[in-house]
Amino acid sequence: MDTSLKNVIVEKAKTSKIDQVDFNNLSFGSIVTDHMMVCDYKNGSWETPKVVPYQPITLDPSSKIFHYGQSVFEGMKAYKDTDNNVWLFRPLENQKRINISSKRLAIPEFPEEYFMEGLKTLLKLEQQWIPQTEGSSLYIRPFVFATGKGFHASPADEYKFIIACAPSGPYFSGKVKVLIEETYSRSANGGVGFAKAGGNYAGQFYPTQLAVAKGYNQVIWTDDNTHEYIEEAGAMNIFIRINDTLITSPISDRILDGITRKSLIELAKEEGINVEIRKIAVKEVVEASENGTLMEMFGAGTAAVISPITAFGYREKDYELPELENSYAALLRKRITDIQYNRAEDKFGWRYKL
Amino acid sequence: MDTSLKNVIVEKAKTSKIDQVDFNNLSFGSIVTDHMMVCDYKNGSWETPKVVPYQPITLDPSSKIFHYGQSVFEGMKAYKDTDNNVWLFRPLENQKRINISSKRLAIPEFPEEYFMEGLKTLLKLEQQWIPQTEGSSLYIRPFVFATGKGFHASPADEYKFIIACAPSGPYFSGKVKVLIEETYSRSANGGVGFAKAGGNYAGQFYPTQLAVAKGYNQVIWTDDNTHEYIEEAGAMNIFIRINDTLITSPISDRILDGITRKSLIELAKEEGINVEIRKIAVKEVVEASENGTLMEMFGAGTAAVISPITAFGYREKDYELPELENSYAALLRKRITDIQYNRAEDKFGWRYKL
Ligand SMILES: Cc1ncc(COP(=O)(O)O)c(C=O)c1O
Ligand SMILES: Cc1ncc(COP(=O)(O)O)c(C=O)c1O
Repeated sequence: MDTSLKNVIVEKAKTSKIDQVDFNNLSFGSIVTDHMMVCDYKNGSWETPKVVPYQPITLDPSSKIFHYGQSVFEGMKAYKDTDNNVWLFRPLENQKRINISSKRLAIPEFPEEYFMEGLKTLLKLEQQWIPQTEGSSLYIRPFVFATGKGFHASPADEYKFIIACAPSGPYFSGKVKVLIEETYSRSANGGVGFAKAGGNYAGQFYPTQLAVAKGYNQVIWTDDNTHEYIEEAGAMNIFIRINDTLITSPISDRILDGITRKSLIELAKEEGINVEIRKIAVKEVVEASENGTLMEMFGAGTAAVISPITAFGYREKDYELPELENSYAALLRKRITDIQYNRAEDKFGWRYKL
Repeated sequence: MDTSLKNVIVEKAKTSKIDQVDFNNLSFGSIVTDHMMVCDYKNGSWETPKVVPYQPITLDPSSKIFHYGQSVFEGMKAYKDTDNNVWLFRPLENQKRINISSKRLAIPEFPEEYFMEGLKTLLKLEQQWIPQTEGSSLYIRPFVFATGKGFHASPADEYKFIIACAPSGPYFSGKVKVLIEETYSRSANGGVGFAKAGGNYAGQFYPTQLAVAKGYNQVIWTDDNTHEYIEEAGAMNIFIRINDTLITSPISDRILDGITRKSLIELAKEEGINVEIRKIAVKEVVEASENGTLMEMFGAGTAAVISPITAFGYREKDYELPELENSYAALLRKRITDIQYNRAEDKFGWRYKL
């Protein structure tokens, strides 16, 4: 049943920018497609979603987004199989999560039908923009922010929900070396860490710059209270393999409930891997590295897929990870991308056909 | 020496909106003046500041402000005395603090001369907008946000610094009843709580809405780890008087270094009041209330000036504050506003003449 165009107003772009794009050399998230979905919240309700030519936004300087960081976002991907069918991966999880994030940031929730119909209408117009090259996909960015005006620190009365798309290559190029952070923190107990709130990301930039200056690519955040436990990375949940056990931290109000993370947990279990969801002490990881039982560390997220970590830094010392023949990272990466690109059976029902 | 116009490009508005404003019924921060200062950061440096007619901003939907909350702001006021002289209060403190905030958010710092010259040029054009009524002033909002584009979660390469002004009345109308919060938190150790980062404010809206629904005006934040210690309020630092001692929490990386707070500490000491800067346990405040030694609680901030708290809620119970004849709040409020409005000697050199 295709209801996707029913309630969405469509205004097509007169020309396309697609011919200017080199699909064999895509970076991550820097080229946008011809259209975007836009929906405004005014007078207490969401207006009819529109798909319009991608275009600038005009806002009053007192719009609350500029002052109070009232914004949340999502990150999804569309994949094309060899028959040119287009697939999404668990899109309703993103739809639900953006509303979980919105609620915490006092942003009105966006109706499921608007999200799904807006998204499908947009993607149908942008099908040609979805790359078919291995490792590439169409990155989809739903986001919502406060457009309501005034310098009083209180929630806005108007919002804008947008979905934009960017044909993208890999998020990381090359090896990923991480720094276990003990000074700065990503989130507080009772804070907004579990939400994809804009401000969570801005707060990570400076500590990440410091880590990059020391030769690392990413920061691994620890809990803000003791800095003894591994939480997650900037845009990835973290998995650690000690001997043959795969460990990942439980989610909490400080950690994003990653869709890749929870999918990998299921796939790993199905593969017969022993998976433990529990707190991971930095000390345990350092000791495992020292006694040779630390086999793998990898990040997991929509943008980064599975990113094997080649070394971690902790207290001025670097710890190398071994290079394995048959890594869990490679196995799980194959399993999840085979589902995403429609190359394998989808027994969990995660694939969603456009 | 007036150098204020030297380096700032000025484009005057053709008409003024001032006649439409009822200066006797000003709310807080909802009416803006005719002009604003704008300065763009491009190719690694700040361009020449401009004062232009207040006008909308046009941005690409992938501008990082919409996604990653990369923004910080300040709040200042301009006061007019009975001779129509215009005064600022410790403006260089705001100038320094916005750069402290910017640094933490990986935003390029804004040069002192640009800030001060831009501000003075703007205020000279807007002098007529500065209210003279007691309790009213011109609220000044410097802010900076990421305009650079792209969906990669990393610092932007372009920014916009703006100063806008809003003639304003009191921040709170009526009594202020607060709720001591034990579930939600404002900031993490090693986080961005000490910065005036946009995201810190959005994160407070939802818990504040819950408190408002229970009949409170404001949340008092406690530390995110134990929730045992009082930190600050949404836009105010907190002072507590037990017997004749005035207590305020030390600043930290979780608490904003308020300019009102530090000014009041000096004024109180000068008045011979015993001031203690130390952690305040919620338990201590509850006990003081119960044994009759809790005399006052008040919030202190540029927007709210000094806001006496009439009651606080804690664990489903409300604690009333006594109504005092000679409160520290009233004394200190008189002392600080007398300096701000040029009604008293300024022995600390805090007043700054436009
Ligand atoms: C902080 C954070 N953690 C984890 C993830 C991974 O989540 P998901 O697998 O749903 O993309 C992301 C990115 O989406 C993120 O921003
Ligand atoms: C979180 C927070 N605390 C305290 C204050 C008070 O600071 P100041 O006195 O410098 O205005 C403010 C407002 O400016 C604030 O936003």
